[in-house]
Amino acid sequence: PSLPVIRGVSASDHRRVRSSPGREMSSALLRATCRRAARRWSTVGGCDGSSTRRNGGVNRFHTGASSWVASGGWDERDADWAKSRRSNLDATSTRRAHSAALGFDETEPVNPFTIVNDELSAISARMRQAVTSEVPALATAAEYFFKVGAEGKRMRPTVLLLMASALTDLSSGGADALSRARAASVSIDHAPAHEVPDDTRRRQQRLAEITELIHVASLLHDDVLDSAATRRGLRALNLEVGNKLAILAGDFLLARASVTLASLRNTEVIELLSRVLEHLVTGEVMQMTAKPERLMSFDHYFQKTYFKTASLIANSAKAIVLLGGHDTETASHAYDYGRHLGLAFQFQDDVLDFVGSGSVLGKPTLGDLKEGIATAPVLFAAEEHPQLSALIERRFKHVGDVELAHDLVKRSDGIERTKELAREHSALAVKAVEALPAID
Amino acid sequence: PSLPVIRGVSASDHRRVRSSPGREMSSALLRATCRRAARRWSTVGGCDGSSTRRNGGVNRFHTGASSWVASGGWDERDADWAKSRRSNLDATSTRRAHSAALGFDETEPVNPFTIVNDELSAISARMRQAVTSEVPALATAAEYFFKVGAEGKRMRPTVLLLMASALTDLSSGGADALSRARAASVSIDHAPAHEVPDDTRRRQQRLAEITELIHVASLLHDDVLDSAATRRGLRALNLEVGNKLAILAGDFLLARASVTLASLRNTEVIELLSRVLEHLVTGEVMQMTAKPERLMSFDHYFQKTYFKTASLIANSAKAIVLLGGHDTETASHAYDYGRHLGLAFQFQDDVLDFVGSGSVLGKPTLGDLKEGIATAPVLFAAEEHPQLSALIERRFKHVGDVELAHDLVKRSDGIERTKELAREHSALAVKAVEALPAID
Repeated sequence: PSLPVIRGVSASDHRRVRSSPGREMSSALLRATCRRAARRWSTVGGCDGSSTRRNGGVNRFHTGASSWVASGGWDERDADWAKSRRSNLDATSTRRAHSAALGFDETEPVNPFTIVNDELSAISARMRQAVTSEVPALATAAEYFFKVGAEGKRMRPTVLLLMASALTDLSSGGADALSRARAASVSIDHAPAHEVPDDTRRRQQRLAEITELIHVASLLHDDVLDSAATRRGLRALNLEVGNKLAILAGDFLLARASVTLASLRNTEVIELLSRVLEHLVTGEVMQMTAKPERLMSFDHYFQKTYFKTASLIANSAKAIVLLGGHDTETASHAYDYGRHLGLAFQFQDDVLDFVGSGSVLGKPTLGDLKEGIATAPVLFAAEEHPQLSALIERRFKHVGDVELAHDLVKRSDGIERTKELAREHSALAVKAVEALPAID
Repeated sequence: PSLPVIRGVSASDHRRVRSSPGREMSSALLRATCRRAARRWSTVGGCDGSSTRRNGGVNRFHTGASSWVASGGWDERDADWAKSRRSNLDATSTRRAHSAALGFDETEPVNPFTIVNDELSAISARMRQAVTSEVPALATAAEYFFKVGAEGKRMRPTVLLLMASALTDLSSGGADALSRARAASVSIDHAPAHEVPDDTRRRQQRLAEITELIHVASLLHDDVLDSAATRRGLRALNLEVGNKLAILAGDFLLARASVTLASLRNTEVIELLSRVLEHLVTGEVMQMTAKPERLMSFDHYFQKTYFKTASLIANSAKAIVLLGGHDTETASHAYDYGRHLGLAFQFQDDVLDFVGSGSVLGKPTLGDLKEGIATAPVLFAAEEHPQLSALIERRFKHVGDVELAHDLVKRSDGIERTKELAREHSALAVKAVEALPAID
């Protein structure tokens, strides 16, 4: 009763979970997506040939990203790939040539992260530069999150740039125009944060930057909030430099996001991202302060998940489409895409907390349980093992609670049902992408 | 060398300090201001009859506010007045009648805080409501800062609303229109933060709200940052509810400020306030992480003071004028007014840390020294007592440093020169107000 109305998560989402089909799949589309999702994402092509044709061959990267989430996200093979990528960081020219060769070739299966990798590197360089040059004392924080090889998955800016590309017809001006546009997009934007970029793609890159700034700021403040021991495989910043700099660094990134956001001079976009800030805090507060009886509720879990994870992806996907000058219907599909992708991503993340390997994910296993947080696998398991309720409501505080909960989850179909939930939202994300207008 | 160029503080400001005339006053205007400033601010009328006439009788409240700062700010007599005000909070009708009787009567000396008191109460009620209803768990934080009687001086919104009034001709529509406008302005704005208010005064109230939200958010995060023991006479929030909620509450207020700011749909105003956020963090980082040799520098002190205190008042004063539809020259005078008032306010605050009474100011005496921070009184004193340099550079960390520094400051003209500095900026603030266009 103390909660506001549920924003971003529809009643049908809730019904879908309650009547979750478990290991059964609900449609041919879902089956097709999952078959492909079982393959390593870096070699996943389009999941749906028709949409690939219709949308100029870029949408399949969204489909690939959705499948990637459903397949288990950042798994060990990805980590191997990332490691080899890091060791090759000096071979920029080789990588560039490779990337150019890949281009938009529709016959070749492409790692969705590769296609915008150079552009992302330029954005990361810009963020790194801003923090280190404007506030040298925050360089520690900057290095912690932005140094080459430690940027994390960069899932959000990747998804956003792919969304922008999916709706932009770069090929209409011919090969020369295409190559000029690509060259421009991978050069580092050195303009001050408050200056309005003329170029649409530059404005969209700024939006991707803002999203990553907000995300990292929330991680910094969360580190203080939930005393996370490790994050992204490195020691949490608050252990390194103390709470003070972690809070300040987060505030600095938020301030920088605000200034950059203002520079876009689009009040609707400004409002969308401002609401996201509110959602991030609200979600965190819900998680921290929920009354015991709310902790058992899927409503509470969904709403919190939307606020803490999906809202940022959904609203920034909508924003990047609006910045591209597209209509509100297209923006609405982008929002749906981001919302479902974000939810799927978080459900999968909650699974990985139970089954993932600490060294790969950069998080201790059972981190949520240890923090007292009940996620979908536990909530599903509680339907089979009612004795979990008491543990959930006391936030796994008694000695042995974490181990008992883990055991009961393993002896339930909680993991499988959560994966299924992720797959469903992944499929809905694909559906939203397919509804995007064709550009050729 | 690691510092960016000084924004907001001109070279002439710096020269002025270096050649500070000490107890001597530099102009007839300054003398006149200071003579009046010696009187209790609540009975200070206009300092300059000509500007009062020219500007419709409201500017004198700005002048009064400037003088108030120069006179020592929130002193014990003010506290008595505030106490009696609080004890009379239930006698709203009496207070309203009194306030209405005061009106804009130019012959009666008026407490500058009284004239917008009812409007401020409406804004405070709105802030209180937002926090308690939208995120009940943050109610503790809300009560801490927004409960009736604990709102602090509300200096910023007071100054802003007075600035708005100074440029608005409420009397042109006749007595009825005037009384309707006043009634509307003191009713509580129940519209959601993201809704665009039609009415100009409402938009200006939103700006005043945003400024207070940002200010309180910075206090909340500073409480974590500098382990302040007391603030506003109450126990610091982080002692009451822990760092977690203090950070979250600050983030919530910042998010709320962002949403409200976006609703104003004025990209210049959005940009001004976004820069302020950046300045607040930069100032805090400068204070925390300055290299020892920078701590002796007036440049460093001025820049930090602009970032931490004056920028918010200056840029929001400019913003509220822009929201009123006035021209950029007027906005620029408002900026100057806010900048000088903010600097004067902080210089005076730095004096009060040495001479004020802990029970009245709501801060422990010598709080800055205990935090390792050297302010103007110490920097001036170091010119007479070079042995202070070593203490400043080691941030008063050795046993006895705080006491020795205090003693040396008392045996110098540091306090007096800082007061003089405050008076100079107060006079410059008055000058900026006098440059505002006449409205009748």
